[in-house]
Amino acid sequence: MASENLQCLKKYIGPLLCLHVVLLSSLCGIATSQTIVTSLPGFEGDLPFTLETGYVGVGDSNSSQLFYYFVESTRSPSEDPVMIWLTGGPGCSVLSAFFLEIGPLAFTYVDYNGSLPSLHLNPYAWTQGLNIIYVDSPVGTGFSYSTTQEGYYIDDEGAVDQIVEFLRKWLLAHPQYLNNILYIGGDSYSGIPLPIVVQKLFDGNNAGVAPYLNLRGYILGNPKTDDFIDVNSVTPFAHRLTLISDELYESTKESCGGDYVNVDDNNTGCVTDLATIDQLLLQINTMHVLEPNCQTALPNNREEEGRRSIRELPENFLTESTPALWCRYYNYVILGVWANDHSVRKALNVRENSIGVWKRCNKSIAYTKTVTSSVEYHKNLSNTNLRALVYSGDHDMSVPHIGTQEWIRDLNLTNSEIWRPWYVDGQVAGYSEKFSNVDYNLQYATVKGAGHAAPEYKAKECYAMIDRWLAYYPL
Amino acid sequence: MASENLQCLKKYIGPLLCLHVVLLSSLCGIATSQTIVTSLPGFEGDLPFTLETGYVGVGDSNSSQLFYYFVESTRSPSEDPVMIWLTGGPGCSVLSAFFLEIGPLAFTYVDYNGSLPSLHLNPYAWTQGLNIIYVDSPVGTGFSYSTTQEGYYIDDEGAVDQIVEFLRKWLLAHPQYLNNILYIGGDSYSGIPLPIVVQKLFDGNNAGVAPYLNLRGYILGNPKTDDFIDVNSVTPFAHRLTLISDELYESTKESCGGDYVNVDDNNTGCVTDLATIDQLLLQINTMHVLEPNCQTALPNNREEEGRRSIRELPENFLTESTPALWCRYYNYVILGVWANDHSVRKALNVRENSIGVWKRCNKSIAYTKTVTSSVEYHKNLSNTNLRALVYSGDHDMSVPHIGTQEWIRDLNLTNSEIWRPWYVDGQVAGYSEKFSNVDYNLQYATVKGAGHAAPEYKAKECYAMIDRWLAYYPL
Repeated sequence: MASENLQCLKKYIGPLLCLHVVLLSSLCGIATSQTIVTSLPGFEGDLPFTLETGYVGVGDSNSSQLFYYFVESTRSPSEDPVMIWLTGGPGCSVLSAFFLEIGPLAFTYVDYNGSLPSLHLNPYAWTQGLNIIYVDSPVGTGFSYSTTQEGYYIDDEGAVDQIVEFLRKWLLAHPQYLNNILYIGGDSYSGIPLPIVVQKLFDGNNAGVAPYLNLRGYILGNPKTDDFIDVNSVTPFAHRLTLISDELYESTKESCGGDYVNVDDNNTGCVTDLATIDQLLLQINTMHVLEPNCQTALPNNREEEGRRSIRELPENFLTESTPALWCRYYNYVILGVWANDHSVRKALNVRENSIGVWKRCNKSIAYTKTVTSSVEYHKNLSNTNLRALVYSGDHDMSVPHIGTQEWIRDLNLTNSEIWRPWYVDGQVAGYSEKFSNVDYNLQYATVKGAGHAAPEYKAKECYAMIDRWLAYYPL
Repeated sequence: MASENLQCLKKYIGPLLCLHVVLLSSLCGIATSQTIVTSLPGFEGDLPFTLETGYVGVGDSNSSQLFYYFVESTRSPSEDPVMIWLTGGPGCSVLSAFFLEIGPLAFTYVDYNGSLPSLHLNPYAWTQGLNIIYVDSPVGTGFSYSTTQEGYYIDDEGAVDQIVEFLRKWLLAHPQYLNNILYIGGDSYSGIPLPIVVQKLFDGNNAGVAPYLNLRGYILGNPKTDDFIDVNSVTPFAHRLTLISDELYESTKESCGGDYVNVDDNNTGCVTDLATIDQLLLQINTMHVLEPNCQTALPNNREEEGRRSIRELPENFLTESTPALWCRYYNYVILGVWANDHSVRKALNVRENSIGVWKRCNKSIAYTKTVTSSVEYHKNLSNTNLRALVYSGDHDMSVPHIGTQEWIRDLNLTNSEIWRPWYVDGQVAGYSEKFSNVDYNLQYATVKGAGHAAPEYKAKECYAMIDRWLAYYPL
């Protein structure tokens, strides 16, 4: 049990900070391991930032080994906040965020020739002002693995427990960060576990669980939040982006009574209208409605997934099709080539034979979605003293901003700062508004022209957004 | 008078085709002049297409000399349709369309160093299947000029008459094209004069005016059509693109009763809401809401024009600011450099001292907008046997697709083909629907992700669209 290790640590080192967790943890079974990585295949020379990789064992007998990448802030690690970053899926590796969204490195994919991809520094890395723990969660994701078969059977609550345990253990193993402000961040499907993680950490603090966490708030990008609200918002979103006609939208609103999720099969008008909408949206890139749909470039993969699922890239993308550099998903292919290279795994200190092929999104984990909505957790959190930043790439149809704005409205907070543009380089980067409740506040921002993982599309703007928000500066 | 020349021609050559108009016209005063241009400054080698430039004199004593560029179809000039293309403003030169939208040449503006810009062939030129007459209209636009001061005082009806006279004379001077199918095309403000031109040509045919024109239909891109409908659609459009909040939109709808144009100054709720909307949209690029607003890059030009006008680029763009290649309007600067070069004017056979500085959009013409709506003309035309293609770049806020769809709905046609995606390279390029009335049909298409002059943003898609439509093929 996770708490066994914590109890063990508390028993041996008491409330004082543990400075040698790796050694101490050997007293209680291998809970954490960590190495500083000074160079990475594809990047010329030494890394100009501190990268640590490692495992934290969680669950029964630490049978779940969660892999993480920790990047120290390049500004002032001791003063800057710590943020743990979670990705979606569930089952998508945090390397997506690391290389394609907010990490310190990015692939140089122009003229990519099929060999080991080369890397360059990301000028818009969020690690410029944050110490970020990028974690592959839940177990089965990225380089995280379980020592038991049952370990891969996990649900939302189990994933939450793993993250909470991971974070406590990681901080115990890095006591120098225990006093830093702590943020919990993530996007996409992490909108489900993340607010619960925040709630548990907050409750733990109140209950006196050690270590005390300097939890300040949470950050969510295009977060999956509510099965009904999110999916139901796809239809009005498609209408607003003129992908379905005014007439069809009006007809569907009426025939379905505004509910496009719980459809009575006998309601033929609604069923027919929704089927028509599905057809109209079939070839749209749900992650960004203006970008090409990469699936259509794949000769052997014309399987359609429909509008209610977040599309995934087939693993044969590189081998079975002409390199489609115009396609943003091509990054995913390059990422796979890199992560599956032997030299890379060695450099990252990935344990040998711990996993087979690294997959950007592992669909084979036996994950059960047990939480259909995290709105209640947001409601609870709105009674704390935490702060939240929620942002939406406004061209994302997989988790449309319309749904996100709806559940934020449902929190019944005070609209403390009205809708206004926010700027980067004198350009409107999006719009923002603020909501508050006593000591709690939530800032909502759209990222104009961005898709599902907003920093993937608008890196500079998103970096400015997080940098200002962290500094308590207006967006 | 225009008709004098026509009468003159009819008198001298009767109903037979005139093969030597240039010579004959000398009998009636200089009505037309024309030269084949085989090379152009900036383009290496001879032009691989036939370009003719020239003037057609219209109005009293041919005092208005309209300049045109005629490009022969590179497919089959004798069989392909002829299209005359009009631009907007009013007062914007057709060179914008020629170089930035649908013409055979485009600027190579990467690494542009301030000297004479270089040119390359546009792979998506509409002249691949069309004989296009690009005309600078009305007088005062581009290289068109008047020999009298009064000539520059013109209104919508006057502009219409000039175009009609121009086209009849041009075809008489190019009798080999008299049997080709004729289309009238244009975008932006030409949505006002163009349907009236079509009506006049159609009526002229019925009245037996010579020459008989083989008029088949018309093409309009993001056309300004109705003062009320177009402007009123800006507010719902801004809401649909999430530039204004749901709350403000609902409030404005209610306070203004859905009318955002004819506002009672005493209606403070409506006035306040609209002022808030103006503020929210102030820095948005109205031509394409996702593109940067180039104005903000100009140190000496922060003057704001508000949401109801179509923004124009100041002429000092090049000289007073750092070259802003990220800015699409930079093309306009390059265009100005090219068109004002002495060698260019010589190559184009622009008459010396006929105009001063060439301006992409000449705001100094004394143009009076006398037609507030061309919807009635569309209604009339819907009782003819013509065909129409109307398309909208769906991210244009200057003439939003919402308004265009509204007036099309107001025509009360039969929706003969329902809303469906159209594709280019297996990607959804937009959506389309068809309307008809006996022998008339109108195809409406959105161009997904495009702005005000759609081919400027989505050249390949727009070329596919026009090519298919001309061939009577489904989009």
